[in-house]
Amino acid sequence: MNTPNRRILIIGGVAGGATCAARARRLCETCEILVFERGPHVSFANCGLPYFVGDVIESETKLLVASPDVFTHRFNIGVHTETEVTRIDRHARTIEMRDLKTGAMRQEPYDALVLATGAKPVRPPLPGIDLPGIHVLRTIPDSRKIKAAAANASRALLVGGGFIGLEMAENLVGLGLEVTLLELADQVLPPLDPEMAAYAAERLKSRGVSLRLGEGVAAFERHPERGLNVLTSKGETIAADLVILGIGVRPESALAADAGLELGALGGIRVDEYMRTSDPAIWAVGDVVEVKNRVTGEWQLVPLAGPANRQGRVAATAILHHFSYGDDGTPPPLKFEGVLGTAVCEVFGLTIACTGANEKQLRRAGMNYQEIFLHPGHHVSYFPGAKPIHMKLLFSETDGRILGAQAVGELDVARRIDVIATAMMQGASVFDLEDLELCYAPQFGAAKDPVNLAGMIAANHLRRDLPLADWEELATTPALLVDVRSETEFAGGHIPNARNLPLETLRDRLHELPQDREIWLICGVGQRAYYAFRLLMQNGLQVKVLSGGMQTYQARMHAGG
Amino acid sequence: MNTPNRRILIIGGVAGGATCAARARRLCETCEILVFERGPHVSFANCGLPYFVGDVIESETKLLVASPDVFTHRFNIGVHTETEVTRIDRHARTIEMRDLKTGAMRQEPYDALVLATGAKPVRPPLPGIDLPGIHVLRTIPDSRKIKAAAANASRALLVGGGFIGLEMAENLVGLGLEVTLLELADQVLPPLDPEMAAYAAERLKSRGVSLRLGEGVAAFERHPERGLNVLTSKGETIAADLVILGIGVRPESALAADAGLELGALGGIRVDEYMRTSDPAIWAVGDVVEVKNRVTGEWQLVPLAGPANRQGRVAATAILHHFSYGDDGTPPPLKFEGVLGTAVCEVFGLTIACTGANEKQLRRAGMNYQEIFLHPGHHVSYFPGAKPIHMKLLFSETDGRILGAQAVGELDVARRIDVIATAMMQGASVFDLEDLELCYAPQFGAAKDPVNLAGMIAANHLRRDLPLADWEELATTPALLVDVRSETEFAGGHIPNARNLPLETLRDRLHELPQDREIWLICGVGQRAYYAFRLLMQNGLQVKVLSGGMQTYQARMHAGG
Repeated sequence: MNTPNRRILIIGGVAGGATCAARARRLCETCEILVFERGPHVSFANCGLPYFVGDVIESETKLLVASPDVFTHRFNIGVHTETEVTRIDRHARTIEMRDLKTGAMRQEPYDALVLATGAKPVRPPLPGIDLPGIHVLRTIPDSRKIKAAAANASRALLVGGGFIGLEMAENLVGLGLEVTLLELADQVLPPLDPEMAAYAAERLKSRGVSLRLGEGVAAFERHPERGLNVLTSKGETIAADLVILGIGVRPESALAADAGLELGALGGIRVDEYMRTSDPAIWAVGDVVEVKNRVTGEWQLVPLAGPANRQGRVAATAILHHFSYGDDGTPPPLKFEGVLGTAVCEVFGLTIACTGANEKQLRRAGMNYQEIFLHPGHHVSYFPGAKPIHMKLLFSETDGRILGAQAVGELDVARRIDVIATAMMQGASVFDLEDLELCYAPQFGAAKDPVNLAGMIAANHLRRDLPLADWEELATTPALLVDVRSETEFAGGHIPNARNLPLETLRDRLHELPQDREIWLICGVGQRAYYAFRLLMQNGLQVKVLSGGMQTYQARMHAGG
Repeated sequence: MNTPNRRILIIGGVAGGATCAARARRLCETCEILVFERGPHVSFANCGLPYFVGDVIESETKLLVASPDVFTHRFNIGVHTETEVTRIDRHARTIEMRDLKTGAMRQEPYDALVLATGAKPVRPPLPGIDLPGIHVLRTIPDSRKIKAAAANASRALLVGGGFIGLEMAENLVGLGLEVTLLELADQVLPPLDPEMAAYAAERLKSRGVSLRLGEGVAAFERHPERGLNVLTSKGETIAADLVILGIGVRPESALAADAGLELGALGGIRVDEYMRTSDPAIWAVGDVVEVKNRVTGEWQLVPLAGPANRQGRVAATAILHHFSYGDDGTPPPLKFEGVLGTAVCEVFGLTIACTGANEKQLRRAGMNYQEIFLHPGHHVSYFPGAKPIHMKLLFSETDGRILGAQAVGELDVARRIDVIATAMMQGASVFDLEDLELCYAPQFGAAKDPVNLAGMIAANHLRRDLPLADWEELATTPALLVDVRSETEFAGGHIPNARNLPLETLRDRLHELPQDREIWLICGVGQRAYYAFRLLMQNGLQVKVLSGGMQTYQARMHAGG
């Protein structure tokens, strides 16, 4: 593309902004490309910050994915750090900026402008919020401050149980601190449903984190001797040397709003599928934009690195297409078609991963769905070291389309969610999951992989080969609850009012079961209940199965459900 | 389905046969289901045998996936082990069998018959092949014999470098034996292409295995003192206390052939997509059947557990459908639509996985394809412990459809092949791989996952944003070879005749490059060459890139290419 002397200005030089700049250079050797970044670093590894605090990543320079030097010499991109853009003049196509070191103001003209201004951590206006010792974690300087504070601290309080809160809990425990985690909701990890988040909560507690769910901060005060007193919404006081707020981020869209660009209801910049804003000369990428959820179609804020990078690539491609062809009606070759929200996090050896929509989102969007639970080993049980993966799959009751998946376990969890995310990107159904041909050797899975199993259970339900009972109705159902585990297993703990008829005895004890009352079957993880279902159904009884068995029951109990 | 007293007889009780029996019971409580197995065990973990020999799996009972007791009491399935079926009378719909313990013969009538007779290890008719000390590994008794022999052995010789050969090499080295591996082909692991198999070969050698490629067995002789002398095709003599043949398996289709069922050219039973043979009352599943390759459409023998299990499920479903509806034209609800050949194996900490077709298969099928190589870390480099994954992706030059993938590395290799296999099952193209939204946190991958990168490189090639040079033509091309790595890297080793122009200096040294001669670019893994390509191409030069850089060059050198 021959477009000499066109100027692409990019505000924000991390993730989406950095990718956009590098891609623009690959597409256009003659364009002038400038990046303006308020902070001291471009292209740093935001996601690595908790591990830098925890000394897992030892050197700060490791966090710099691409140095300004690489930008300058490899890509011929002008990088201006510690430079704050203060105004966009859309009419004149210029931006105004302040050099934060000298205070000097200047202007730069653009042909295309990219807003990659990111998001900033939420700091609620609580009494005492500006006291020393209260931190957020977003930048390398933030992490340096927390690292220094942690070196002299023995008690840390984390506010918010999202990904960053959990990763910080692990890292601060690793540094030897006593850690309390407050979360206002009744679960950690909002992208998961409560019974799946319960596994992470149990893991936190088992490693000594004092986890307080349903409890937020009311105010901060100076502690009489050192550090802070944190007053909670339940009227309690917790002493802490160090507080980290991890209650989410908000798009840095003020500059866009001031310029009159269209924003969405959640405060992010509204863009089309080529990442173009309501101004045809301005594009936006990364945490500052709202994106469409691929499952629900709803606008969402998804501050994740993967989508930000892809958006940077899409925006650069669209800009160069625009330079070459104007707006002649031909679409740019790359599109951003929304997010699934695939995410993963590790806490104390437990991997938590998810993709697509969760139940909360599906209910909010008014979509019909069915859920199943399963608890297979990450590989065959006969090979040493098998660890369970707790899985939940959400799918359309109408056509079997996969709507979302959540998984928790110690090994190979991301692999299963990646497979399901890939299937979802192709619009696959649970019937497709049944047939997937995945890697199998004893140390790598099973001839029926956990993902195949999830597909089979869901498909069996849809074919009416395995009708599922609704866990939500367990407390109120008039059905007879039959537990088909062994007598020993049953004696070790069971659901109140359940009756024990071990699977192996069922054929001889059919007469003990009612013909005129629905029967709900439960076992350890769901497999024996499935066998029992097939047996009883073919004998004319009215039967349903509780998906995931006692393992799911216990997770639901932990989640308070 | 109400079909009292129908009889389903299944010949062979491992993998496909066992699955078929259990599924048939779930679908039909009133059918009579009998399994006949020549060996002493049904439903045992064939894939675990090398690890049982190596004491990784300590107890033999672990290898029994489902005991005869489970078959009898849980599933009400009659299991007859050590019973050899000797004849099928298709006209009378009976089979004839011999009790191997008593020698007694009897007959059983069937309504539906399933052949799950498996495959048997190839024993070539070489001089001395029947001497004591020459083993195959297929059953639990085989593994017991090898285990006993290994306990008194110090030198083992393995014939054949496939999955079993490599797994046995690892396990025998683990037991302290000196191991020699003979492979007649010039590479190990036939499902891979040579330059990818070379990584496994290097690993074997680095752990002390004496690997002899391009060398087979000519004859076996008694060793004057103990064990055997193995005479090789190169005229050498190797002394061994223990020999294991791992040169493949052949379908056990004699019973089917004798009964006049249609076989394929490879000797496997020919079935339709419901696993039905040429006789409408006989189905066949597992290693004894030929299956269609999903990529090339060619008939193939694929002795893998995953497909065998799915086939068992499909056959049982088809049989019960047949019982209920006869052949009224409605298709059974499950189909087997062929195999990708997804497979994985671990050897000395290195994982080797593949899916789809390899170059050899594509060439044989006359399909047009393009290849790319890449060598990303299994997670971001800034997080400690990143290990490279060497990947090869094959795709259609016409429309970008993914045709196959191979990957080798220490961590998270199966995950990437599973993702690509899932995409392939949905008919995805390399453009779809670009957009996949996969799990990312520093310890789990990268914002651009290795699979995304593979998609981007391939898609860039197809969009003509990154034209690839053909590695096969490297020795003969008139193009100028330019290595864009640093001077230090170049000094550490480079391709003969390559000229060094570091990427960072290219913009200033454009005049040193010819306008009238094609330029081929190379770097470490391909990334810098891509940047250099974009720069030179936009300056009007004729440029191509060598995919995978020096890493691929070295792998090809190791493979003798």
